[in-house]
Amino acid sequence: MPAVGSSVPRKDAWDKVTGKARFVDDYSFPGIVHVATVRSPVAFGRIDEIDFCESRMLPGVLDCFTWRDIPGKNINPLVYPDQPFLAEQYARFYGEAIALIAAETREIAEEAVRRVKLKITKMTPVLSIRESLKPDSIKIYGNDNIFTRYTIKKGNAEEAIKSAKYFFEQEYETPYQEHAYLETQGMIAIPGIEDTITVNGSMQCPFYVHDAVSQILGLSKNKVRIVQSTTGGGFGGKEDFPSLVAGHAALVAKKLGRPTKLIYRREEDIISSSKRHPSLVKFKAGVNENGKLVAAIVDYFVDAGAFATLSPIVLWRGTVHAVGPYVCDNVLIRTAAVATNKVPCGAYRGFGSPQVIFAGESMIDEIAYELNLDPIEIRRRNILRIGDSTVTNQKIDKSCGLEETLDKAYEKSNWKEKWKPYSSNSGIDKIKKGIGVSTIYYGVGLGAGGKHLDRAGASMTLLHDGSVHCAVGNTEMGQGARTVLAQIAADALGVPYPIVHVIETDTSFVPDSGPTVASRTTFMSGNALISAAKDLRTRLLPLISELLKCPIEDADLVDGLGFSRKALPENGGKSIQIQELTKEFYSRRLMPSSFGWYVAPNTDFDKESGQGNAYFTYSYCTNIAEVEVDSETGVVKVTKITSAHDMGKAINPQQVEGQIQGGALQGVGYATTEEIRHDKNGRMLNDAFATYILPTFEDGPEIVPIIVEHAYDQGPFGAKGFGEVPLMGIAPAIANAVFNATGKRVRIIPIKPEILLEN
Amino acid sequence: MPAVGSSVPRKDAWDKVTGKARFVDDYSFPGIVHVATVRSPVAFGRIDEIDFCESRMLPGVLDCFTWRDIPGKNINPLVYPDQPFLAEQYARFYGEAIALIAAETREIAEEAVRRVKLKITKMTPVLSIRESLKPDSIKIYGNDNIFTRYTIKKGNAEEAIKSAKYFFEQEYETPYQEHAYLETQGMIAIPGIEDTITVNGSMQCPFYVHDAVSQILGLSKNKVRIVQSTTGGGFGGKEDFPSLVAGHAALVAKKLGRPTKLIYRREEDIISSSKRHPSLVKFKAGVNENGKLVAAIVDYFVDAGAFATLSPIVLWRGTVHAVGPYVCDNVLIRTAAVATNKVPCGAYRGFGSPQVIFAGESMIDEIAYELNLDPIEIRRRNILRIGDSTVTNQKIDKSCGLEETLDKAYEKSNWKEKWKPYSSNSGIDKIKKGIGVSTIYYGVGLGAGGKHLDRAGASMTLLHDGSVHCAVGNTEMGQGARTVLAQIAADALGVPYPIVHVIETDTSFVPDSGPTVASRTTFMSGNALISAAKDLRTRLLPLISELLKCPIEDADLVDGLGFSRKALPENGGKSIQIQELTKEFYSRRLMPSSFGWYVAPNTDFDKESGQGNAYFTYSYCTNIAEVEVDSETGVVKVTKITSAHDMGKAINPQQVEGQIQGGALQGVGYATTEEIRHDKNGRMLNDAFATYILPTFEDGPEIVPIIVEHAYDQGPFGAKGFGEVPLMGIAPAIANAVFNATGKRVRIIPIKPEILLEN
Repeated sequence: MPAVGSSVPRKDAWDKVTGKARFVDDYSFPGIVHVATVRSPVAFGRIDEIDFCESRMLPGVLDCFTWRDIPGKNINPLVYPDQPFLAEQYARFYGEAIALIAAETREIAEEAVRRVKLKITKMTPVLSIRESLKPDSIKIYGNDNIFTRYTIKKGNAEEAIKSAKYFFEQEYETPYQEHAYLETQGMIAIPGIEDTITVNGSMQCPFYVHDAVSQILGLSKNKVRIVQSTTGGGFGGKEDFPSLVAGHAALVAKKLGRPTKLIYRREEDIISSSKRHPSLVKFKAGVNENGKLVAAIVDYFVDAGAFATLSPIVLWRGTVHAVGPYVCDNVLIRTAAVATNKVPCGAYRGFGSPQVIFAGESMIDEIAYELNLDPIEIRRRNILRIGDSTVTNQKIDKSCGLEETLDKAYEKSNWKEKWKPYSSNSGIDKIKKGIGVSTIYYGVGLGAGGKHLDRAGASMTLLHDGSVHCAVGNTEMGQGARTVLAQIAADALGVPYPIVHVIETDTSFVPDSGPTVASRTTFMSGNALISAAKDLRTRLLPLISELLKCPIEDADLVDGLGFSRKALPENGGKSIQIQELTKEFYSRRLMPSSFGWYVAPNTDFDKESGQGNAYFTYSYCTNIAEVEVDSETGVVKVTKITSAHDMGKAINPQQVEGQIQGGALQGVGYATTEEIRHDKNGRMLNDAFATYILPTFEDGPEIVPIIVEHAYDQGPFGAKGFGEVPLMGIAPAIANAVFNATGKRVRIIPIKPEILLEN
Repeated sequence: MPAVGSSVPRKDAWDKVTGKARFVDDYSFPGIVHVATVRSPVAFGRIDEIDFCESRMLPGVLDCFTWRDIPGKNINPLVYPDQPFLAEQYARFYGEAIALIAAETREIAEEAVRRVKLKITKMTPVLSIRESLKPDSIKIYGNDNIFTRYTIKKGNAEEAIKSAKYFFEQEYETPYQEHAYLETQGMIAIPGIEDTITVNGSMQCPFYVHDAVSQILGLSKNKVRIVQSTTGGGFGGKEDFPSLVAGHAALVAKKLGRPTKLIYRREEDIISSSKRHPSLVKFKAGVNENGKLVAAIVDYFVDAGAFATLSPIVLWRGTVHAVGPYVCDNVLIRTAAVATNKVPCGAYRGFGSPQVIFAGESMIDEIAYELNLDPIEIRRRNILRIGDSTVTNQKIDKSCGLEETLDKAYEKSNWKEKWKPYSSNSGIDKIKKGIGVSTIYYGVGLGAGGKHLDRAGASMTLLHDGSVHCAVGNTEMGQGARTVLAQIAADALGVPYPIVHVIETDTSFVPDSGPTVASRTTFMSGNALISAAKDLRTRLLPLISELLKCPIEDADLVDGLGFSRKALPENGGKSIQIQELTKEFYSRRLMPSSFGWYVAPNTDFDKESGQGNAYFTYSYCTNIAEVEVDSETGVVKVTKITSAHDMGKAINPQQVEGQIQGGALQGVGYATTEEIRHDKNGRMLNDAFATYILPTFEDGPEIVPIIVEHAYDQGPFGAKGFGEVPLMGIAPAIANAVFNATGKRVRIIPIKPEILLEN
């Protein structure tokens, strides 16, 4: 039975549900040193003095470190060289790391941090996009406070919008979103022989951490080894940020020659780690008499925080996705990542697109209602189909299941019976029901923006007993990667799924395979495993051919059985079990290992005009949300989400459904409760789960996942990427449902009761 | 500058001399369980009962385990399936492992071991080769107490010996030799996620340990990972034996679900771990009037101990080497590994050949003196040269530097001025000086006896910054492997030595590369690295060609510089540094990793007749020993050893000299002080370094190493294997020097003062 396409049990399920899995904080070593971080108490200020006297007097304190102790470069190697591992002259956001203290216990280290006397000359911080963009604002980055700008220009949007029959213009705002991974940031660094260092910890992107540790220590890359420990969630929050934590732990380990441990408490994790960018979107649309979008002008600003970190690439994805999966010949998209004196924002499931999707999908809904069109119908008139072109003028020539997701979600949700009646909700009902829709697309992988990183390696070894050992460069962080990749490896090699083991990601096993982000793991590491399996089969198939005395072109290996396709075992043909085959393989001293390598299909994009192939392929999704709004309290209860996805191929349908469930719930939080507030000095006010309100299972709607499979011929068994998509379009579907229920258009999320109760 | 051939600094030197290197006992984990071993107090007996009651009552004792707790197979997977991990019905030697006790501390575990009440019915043990071979002996293995026999038959030795002009017949005996590695046996086992287990420890052969742990736990091989920790010496003593220690640690770890640590104390290490086989050699020789060997009949018996373990292959090497590096047309070699109720013997530097070499090289010396020939001269008349055939009728067709080693050692030692005068030592001198010689050869690698294991893999990755990361399947155990392999990798790839790092051996990195034994590491792993480098160069050279605009066949990369061979940089040609080249390599997403694979040259041997190519090539050596014998005390002082070696190519001359120094000193111990004694019940009497007498630096002679390089075209840069050779011929050279000094022929080593004082 093929493993691909069936809901085989997760490789990591048993350990995780029984508590056997060990996270970084579950490890220790004798003589381990605990590290705590001295952080900025101001949003912006000049660091005049760091006085460690009282800290050093505390018994158990080993040493204190500032940027001056860094032997390598004090810059986290990301897109721009702007973020230091430890602040130098200036602190640029509340919570920024300024110094490190090493002690024999965590408690002592933390007490020592409290005893540090920081002399900082406070400066006036810039705390919002609007403020930062003012002509007379304090300039905290360059001349304009803008880290990055992008433009997409197709046709002539300004002219077309003037001559369009209908014109729409609105502003939308979205909040921070905290990743709220169960496991906080944490690293253990262990100095090794021959000047090496190994860092174990919670992370998505071991190769980013590899870069960072090599950089802070000034070590050549072959002296640095990064091993991912079982990771309790990432969602983008463990993309770039673990590089800092690892750098800090490694610095102290190297200085003291002892293993170190640095585990964040939840509060410091929330104040200092990356978040989803707050955004401001100004959307103008021109629509013709048939409800077809003829022009769109989108201005999209994200609040990047104090350093660029991943903002340039987060913004790029948002830019490409700004108009949504619609045909539109005249497009002008202008985007900017804006500097403020707040925590640097970075990757979060969706990576800059949920914000613009909220705007775009709200806008299309506004248009539909304005034109008296069913929101489903307006989408039918505008969505991308095979043969159409995107806003970047990329022709969709294969694997586009958007219409099917729309049709299936429409039917399954019973939209037809609900939308119209809900639209005419009587004003006297206490509970008002509503239904709303969003349609989205998602460029798989890093695309043209991260093209040079879009390759992946894998190694595969056939062991003496016929079992198979695989290593990949992308990580398991709860999303099910190890399971799905083992399924792909099993079928690609032709062995049963249970005998395939995928080891924890370790930078020493495989070449740099890029980050575990952008829904690229199944696609990239899957293809790399297929490449490795192909290579192994070039030695296995001739052996089968020889042992079974069949022509090599007839020899096959499926599910652990070697046979001739011209004389199938079920027809009495000879066959050989993998165990026996492997014995023979080894006795002939054939090479039992192989490296696979996969380079993403080419993208060809002109950054100047914003035209070209932004991504090699897209995944598609339709969400239909149903809500009940309490007209007395203003509370929105999301009752049901029907979520239909085209991911090319569901390698493991159960896991696909799990992703839809999890993503939808994160989307419910984004739409209804999650936000971060700061005081006027830029200090974060809600740095705990008591005050940052996440949806719980109680708040969870019924979620109905629908799988649509329009195979992508370059994908492993037809699969595209999909992990982020389930979250991305939830918020506008809910906001649209709220409008359907209440007639109230919410353009700022989270949708708060007080807003709904306003007149 | 090429790395190969120069004495670059050792990769592991700094850590080892500064104490930074961490051995297995330097590691711990929170919650680690300490394991101690219950051992047989008798040499042979029936185990009636193991009573753990008193042990279990000790606070801190966690559990006790016998063979009944083993989930997999209770057999250490070696040549014969005879040795259990834990004794079942019978204990077969004093010190055999019977049970394991796990406790919170080592002290508690050891106290619990002392409290175990063993009911054992004692049986009469067999304690020596002679006793075991008696027709009426107790049979402890099969019908004849013989694990393995081999025969080599060439020509008609029995006839030829009768018709030879001179006939010689002697018996020689050699003792146990204890490896005396600085670090005792030790393992840490750590249960991991997804039912995996990782074992770290002191070992030579991670893939043997891999087999063993998989076998005792009944786990598929992809669930088992073996990582060698810095290993403080092996010398063969960490070839097979660590499999037992690892099996024990892993069993307890798996049962308790906690990490375990099992470190041997010196005494238990000495009584229970493998040793060099004691031997008995009966040597008959026929010699013609010119002093040429015309016939040899050798009967060689080794005391294998209670289990076969590695004896079948140790014996095989001894069999092939029994007559030494001489031309002889009529040979009959009959060998046997004999069972006794003593510790199983196994691998020790030289692997069954030092014993027969002691006999053969003593015999040739006896012949020389008898025929009134200079011992150098008799060798000149008999040694193998290109075109000659060995006793197995293997034609020596390349790389034979034996004569050159003889000539160089002869000259360098000033033999001519010494031998004659010493021969006529006046009887009245208190201190008598002597000089003696041995000439030997050594079959490199596993040869026909272990052909199916004679392959090796390596992985090589070019990292972003141009540094290189390599992994190999053979281990560093103090012999300098990581350094020599990095030299080979550097030159093969074309990068500077300092930027090549070879990681600790880990079964997850590379395919099974066979054991680290038989002086095969430089040759096998070196060739595997060359294969990996070749593959990487198929991607590097085209890039150089393109960037420098030169034909691909002219492109080269040497010492980190890419250039065209037709326009050399020193003549003004363009060139590119590896760092820049790598940047371009990565930006093109070329595959930066490769697996190398090497299969040893074919050997073709008929086990029945003992004729054929036993090994793919041979290394050669001449040792000249000088002694001073105190005629009053009988004490032999070895004053100088001149040791000339043909190892094909000295990859690192300093390390070659280091090997010669170390090996010679081990040979001095073997010749003069080392032996193990048992009481009449088979209990070892000298289980400590206070009573087992090793040579110290004080006892060390002046050692003069001579390097002779007859390149072997299949070897990495011409290298053959060589690590074991320096020890192998020392004992007979010393015994021959003692004869030269005293006129006293010693046929039993160690050469004790009391023997020399006997009349």
